[in-house]
Amino acid sequence: MGPGPSEIHPRVFSAMGRPTIGYLDPVFVGMMEELKELLRYAFQTKNAMTFPVSGPGSVGMEMCFVNMVSPGDKVIVCRNGVFGGRMIENVERCGGTAVVVEDPMGKPVDPEKVREAFVNNPDTKILAFVHAETSTGVRSDAKTLAAIAREFDALTIVDTVTSLIGIPVLVDEWGLDAVYSGSQKCLSCTPGLSPITFSDRVVELVKNRKHKVQSWFMDLNLLLGYWGESNRTYHHTAPTNSLYSLHEALVMLRDEGLEASWARHRRNHLALKAGLETLGLSYLVDEEYRLPQMNAVHVMPGIDEQEVRRRLLEEMNIEIGAGLGPLAGKIWRFGIMGYSCKMENVMLCLCALESVFDNMGAKIEVGAAEAAAYHAYAARPTNNKPLKNAA
Amino acid sequence: MGPGPSEIHPRVFSAMGRPTIGYLDPVFVGMMEELKELLRYAFQTKNAMTFPVSGPGSVGMEMCFVNMVSPGDKVIVCRNGVFGGRMIENVERCGGTAVVVEDPMGKPVDPEKVREAFVNNPDTKILAFVHAETSTGVRSDAKTLAAIAREFDALTIVDTVTSLIGIPVLVDEWGLDAVYSGSQKCLSCTPGLSPITFSDRVVELVKNRKHKVQSWFMDLNLLLGYWGESNRTYHHTAPTNSLYSLHEALVMLRDEGLEASWARHRRNHLALKAGLETLGLSYLVDEEYRLPQMNAVHVMPGIDEQEVRRRLLEEMNIEIGAGLGPLAGKIWRFGIMGYSCKMENVMLCLCALESVFDNMGAKIEVGAAEAAAYHAYAARPTNNKPLKNAA
Repeated sequence: MGPGPSEIHPRVFSAMGRPTIGYLDPVFVGMMEELKELLRYAFQTKNAMTFPVSGPGSVGMEMCFVNMVSPGDKVIVCRNGVFGGRMIENVERCGGTAVVVEDPMGKPVDPEKVREAFVNNPDTKILAFVHAETSTGVRSDAKTLAAIAREFDALTIVDTVTSLIGIPVLVDEWGLDAVYSGSQKCLSCTPGLSPITFSDRVVELVKNRKHKVQSWFMDLNLLLGYWGESNRTYHHTAPTNSLYSLHEALVMLRDEGLEASWARHRRNHLALKAGLETLGLSYLVDEEYRLPQMNAVHVMPGIDEQEVRRRLLEEMNIEIGAGLGPLAGKIWRFGIMGYSCKMENVMLCLCALESVFDNMGAKIEVGAAEAAAYHAYAARPTNNKPLKNAA
Repeated sequence: MGPGPSEIHPRVFSAMGRPTIGYLDPVFVGMMEELKELLRYAFQTKNAMTFPVSGPGSVGMEMCFVNMVSPGDKVIVCRNGVFGGRMIENVERCGGTAVVVEDPMGKPVDPEKVREAFVNNPDTKILAFVHAETSTGVRSDAKTLAAIAREFDALTIVDTVTSLIGIPVLVDEWGLDAVYSGSQKCLSCTPGLSPITFSDRVVELVKNRKHKVQSWFMDLNLLLGYWGESNRTYHHTAPTNSLYSLHEALVMLRDEGLEASWARHRRNHLALKAGLETLGLSYLVDEEYRLPQMNAVHVMPGIDEQEVRRRLLEEMNIEIGAGLGPLAGKIWRFGIMGYSCKMENVMLCLCALESVFDNMGAKIEVGAAEAAAYHAYAARPTNNKPLKNAA
């Protein structure tokens, strides 16, 4: 129940334990093609260059920047949490200039500030932002931000590590250019891979770069030969078994369906929310911008927040997240992502939290949180119409 | 029986399927400490900064270069195969100048040429070379090369992807500075991790850099906070399950013992060699510099080399490697690495190869290769004295 990695389905573990075969074996190459197609479904895109990067989400992020930013390029970076800050680091290490649009932690990126940054910096090449900030649980309006970038003829780099599969990420419909995610959040795959997709505009840009990409491993020009359509050339030894598990997780996603997955995350979120609020915990993020899969609430006053986490972990094997950076000690983060996102987890977590609070002397009505959660859950049966394109 | 990934022991798969836990969970942090200690044994080093990089060997390589090479630095790079060439790419992408010492594919790096390069370039900061070239199966004399570098006050970057565990890699005794390997060769772990070790000299250099490391993900200064001794700070989501499997593979190595592992690779190599030579196949590499774990032989004249590989793979599920770059179509590469390095694999491979050759019209004496292999194997019982520090 932390901010990821999420729980993993036994089918995924089972797939991961299949024998390791060579990265040029025809069977493996066939799986690579399926992976690309399944990831296109997850990202809702037709982009040819859609594949899993052999590294965690941080490598996916860096891959976008090293390929798209040339020395001297201006990049507008939106920072409303920890991961926006990491994007600034990336721009600077590529020799670019970051124009930073700041919003407080817990608030979404303000599109008006972004527009203003573009007006003041019309030579901007790229807009970079985090769709779903794992550090706070806030969702920014990716569709609107991308539209502003297009208006000023800039490309977009979008972090969807925590959003993908939990809420809609409509790459083609929204016109996003470089979009990366992680395997270990709502996809519930083992950690260590970063699904990524690049629009043809990005591929063109990278092919026509004047400066060589500073990273050999992340150079898209070289990866085109490995993940491209034909004549596969050796680039690096693929993390075979991790790719098996990604394949299985994506097959399971296709079987459930994206819209059903979004609806499931929303339903369990509403149950968790009802319970947490009954416990007196208030959300960091305004309702409109809350991520269902990442619930950040203010720490209960007068309670030792570390002790709560310690008891949950050691006594009941439940992990919840702490605050990062300036929010350390001030919030708890409850993740319900992918396979972790199920009512039994919500119930157990609320029940455990309630008991720990009660034992630590907080004034709460024992049993009320679970009842409220179940009430919210039952009011929203699964045969409700799925949330088509809802955000 | 290819150049890697090697076969994986069921214990390693089983470990990999354990539930994914958080990267700051105390149990996980305990495992990280064990991993560091186990890797120190594998590398025969006391280096504090010894840990697995969350990416394939190519990331391990790039991590050494981006941290140690500053713009303008001169680096002597030895190229006697495909992976030396990749090192040159890395130097240039870091803004350094590569002084290339060339040797033919299949020959070891010539120490005299390296000395000459140092004499002509006394301002050289780093010497980079591949200990065991996977593309040809040649071993270079790491101890001698490192001694030359020290004489000229330069640091060393050493690729031990294919050597580690199959033959001695004595990091401290030989005075190597930055040494990376891969998880999927003689360690027989799942692909996707790169064990790495840095001497204190490297850590000092990186701490005192004037230019920021160009990669955020690979910046050793940031990783010191994650893999260092205390106060672990979040850097990236660790590839938990891959680390479980690495841990198990290293525990199995410790149980077998490094010297026993070296002896096992040598014994099975001598068996394979006897069989291949009986089939009329000759080695690319001179005997003195041959890697036991990576056997490159010239393709039998008059035989369709692709057809041989196709039959072995499709009919008998045996992968062998083809030549890379200029050696494409000219050699076959037989790997006996880690868990793959066992007599039943040697026997099956020789038997299959013999039958395919015979069926394709080659003039060979059926049965002779296996007999020769077994003869060589039986002549070298396991209670032979292990090859202490043999190379």
